[in-house]
Amino acid sequence: MELNVRDELVKEFLDCSSRGDLEKISSMMSHCSDLIDERGETGWTALMLAARHGHYEITKLLLSKGCDTTATNRSGQTARDVALFWGHRHIARLLADGRDGVVHHVLPERETDEADIYFNREFLNRMSEKRTDSEWLAAKRSSPHSVFILFYNLNPLVSPRADANEAEKQERRLETDGDGPIAWFALNTEDDPSKLLKVKDPNSFFLKGPMPGLLMLSDNDAGVVAQARAVLAWHSRYGFCPTCGSETGVEEGGYKRTCLRAGCKSLQGIHNTCYPRVDPVVIMLVIHPDGNQCLLGRKKSFPSGMFSCLAGFIEAGESVEAAVRREVQEESGVLVGQVQYQTCQAWPMPSCLMIGCHCVALTTDISVDKNEIEEARWFTRQQVINALVKDKHAAFNIPPKQAVAHYLIKHWIGFNSNL
Amino acid sequence: MELNVRDELVKEFLDCSSRGDLEKISSMMSHCSDLIDERGETGWTALMLAARHGHYEITKLLLSKGCDTTATNRSGQTARDVALFWGHRHIARLLADGRDGVVHHVLPERETDEADIYFNREFLNRMSEKRTDSEWLAAKRSSPHSVFILFYNLNPLVSPRADANEAEKQERRLETDGDGPIAWFALNTEDDPSKLLKVKDPNSFFLKGPMPGLLMLSDNDAGVVAQARAVLAWHSRYGFCPTCGSETGVEEGGYKRTCLRAGCKSLQGIHNTCYPRVDPVVIMLVIHPDGNQCLLGRKKSFPSGMFSCLAGFIEAGESVEAAVRREVQEESGVLVGQVQYQTCQAWPMPSCLMIGCHCVALTTDISVDKNEIEEARWFTRQQVINALVKDKHAAFNIPPKQAVAHYLIKHWIGFNSNL
Repeated sequence: MELNVRDELVKEFLDCSSRGDLEKISSMMSHCSDLIDERGETGWTALMLAARHGHYEITKLLLSKGCDTTATNRSGQTARDVALFWGHRHIARLLADGRDGVVHHVLPERETDEADIYFNREFLNRMSEKRTDSEWLAAKRSSPHSVFILFYNLNPLVSPRADANEAEKQERRLETDGDGPIAWFALNTEDDPSKLLKVKDPNSFFLKGPMPGLLMLSDNDAGVVAQARAVLAWHSRYGFCPTCGSETGVEEGGYKRTCLRAGCKSLQGIHNTCYPRVDPVVIMLVIHPDGNQCLLGRKKSFPSGMFSCLAGFIEAGESVEAAVRREVQEESGVLVGQVQYQTCQAWPMPSCLMIGCHCVALTTDISVDKNEIEEARWFTRQQVINALVKDKHAAFNIPPKQAVAHYLIKHWIGFNSNL
Repeated sequence: MELNVRDELVKEFLDCSSRGDLEKISSMMSHCSDLIDERGETGWTALMLAARHGHYEITKLLLSKGCDTTATNRSGQTARDVALFWGHRHIARLLADGRDGVVHHVLPERETDEADIYFNREFLNRMSEKRTDSEWLAAKRSSPHSVFILFYNLNPLVSPRADANEAEKQERRLETDGDGPIAWFALNTEDDPSKLLKVKDPNSFFLKGPMPGLLMLSDNDAGVVAQARAVLAWHSRYGFCPTCGSETGVEEGGYKRTCLRAGCKSLQGIHNTCYPRVDPVVIMLVIHPDGNQCLLGRKKSFPSGMFSCLAGFIEAGESVEAAVRREVQEESGVLVGQVQYQTCQAWPMPSCLMIGCHCVALTTDISVDKNEIEEARWFTRQQVINALVKDKHAAFNIPPKQAVAHYLIKHWIGFNSNL
């Protein structure tokens, strides 16, 4: 196949970028500046190729000449995605700087944006300063503008029309009723209230058990339910004073329970016995020392074929990093070195805070504790990509995108969100 | 002053490195390779100067020629410390790669090592798999080799000779007694046992209140005490079943309390009511949008002149990042954008997990909630450095090095640990 002069020029320009020939690139651009965003046969630009092969100075030069950083190749990857995928973090950071400006200069270590994690959305203002204002609370409780969300045995009342009402709900959040923002209350009952409620909305129903229903809410609803369910679950299990066994009374808009027995030690000073419990959990993707495999496990209770990140409760007096190492060793026998926080997730079943990490294995032999998990295996990058894209030949399934494990796995693969 | 030829050569070599003259540096080294680790008047090497001025290619060249990366200037800073201080993260990473090898290629986003935080040291193996082995526990409890550490009202028994015994204790940890490792037990009593104990060791005494005594232990002791005190504090406050108010019994070597009333709901399934509580807290250094100031606050209860990071409990259904934003806004009125996890600390008073973050302010006006803190102020980098080095003209004091707030502040300044 014969190429014309222009095609040959483009080909040479792109080859120089792949090879890292800074001088030649510079010279070609000074003669022919419109080469800068040209693409080769696979849709790759010079910038993507420099990012692919880790050529920092060429990336800088192309940026200084105003190349297009938003162009994508046929896999939908920008040059920055390519740099991240191939582990050239300093180049990814260079490519991000233009986009995110000041913030990345103040905190330069991390180039990824905060993940939008299911259950974490803060749709409502917690307004904790009003919790001790009993007059305000009483007024809100009897206000016709207030919103009441209902739970039956900790399962929320939902309606199939919920999605259609997002815009309306968004407005309601911003509304005021003459005495500040609209207040939202959450109620839980252990007596089936379905019959009473049918009158109001024949399409609404209580979810049957937390899973998988709780993962099918809108992002705004998930944030509201996470907060409500965690606090209600605490009320359902912590009605008595753990210090003396007496009954307790609800205070601070449901955010405190105080022992009703005068003289109880829990009434002197401030004690965690009076406040909702939040249980920190570590959940981690263990990366093979070769960087190209990850360790996933499955519990007996998982759906068939599903593997996920290892996880476990942080113990008293333990750091996040120590808990990661202990849990991985207990469950799989693998020793872990470096640990890196990635993201977290509120998980209201009943009230966990999932702290998501990547970590690097020091050893690779697996020895599973059968009391904890059924199986643990190293999976290659390609096997994980197949699972992520739900390829029909995939060796296994991963948890749905609402689970933080999904994020940890996907983030390791380093693909952008259009995967 | 007249310089001899060699001095002039060194001066020119160092100047080239400061200026970023790659070609000249390369040429000089090919003629005179022993220039590589030469120092100028202030003790700076060419590598430090390249790191200071952000010259990536020169740094690479010097590394490839085998320069000494461990050399320090008169302030005790290595080239990597200098690069970090001046914000040249890609150079700091380059300088770290040689040292830490593979790990940094697998998890390349963070170049700092895991901090050695007080209370976090895992001196003992938790061996949770043995907690349900009641025969093993009974044997250990009566074994003359077992170690018992004592608390009176949650204050540990200490001895001034503790430091001298570190080596002995280290050995004891590794000892076995014919049935696996030596076991350590922790006991708490509310009746003063001092008189009984004097017989054994006249120099030992119980700390008076947790602070500041708990911050004066050796790192190994602090790790042991963190775990023991947090669990004992839970026993002292959670003797009754929160679900029904009945008494509970201790199980699993002290890591579980089970309701003694048959039929209690807490006996069906697994509930957090039965396990020690860990309360996650966010503690954060808020960085000014200009990157050169940080926000610190003081509570009325602080020692005079002391300012520290803002902090607060993570609420039910809340993410780490959301809690940082909420607490900063509640306490200081400042709005926060990006949040970045830095490190954490087990804080056994009574049982917190301090999650330490850096974050970037979006606004700078301060409006203090007087119920939470007494004052909050922006401090410049120089003011913070003065406080860190305990300069006599320092505008304020920061918490001691045992507190994670100290680490967050120092880490922002970017100095290494010999500051």
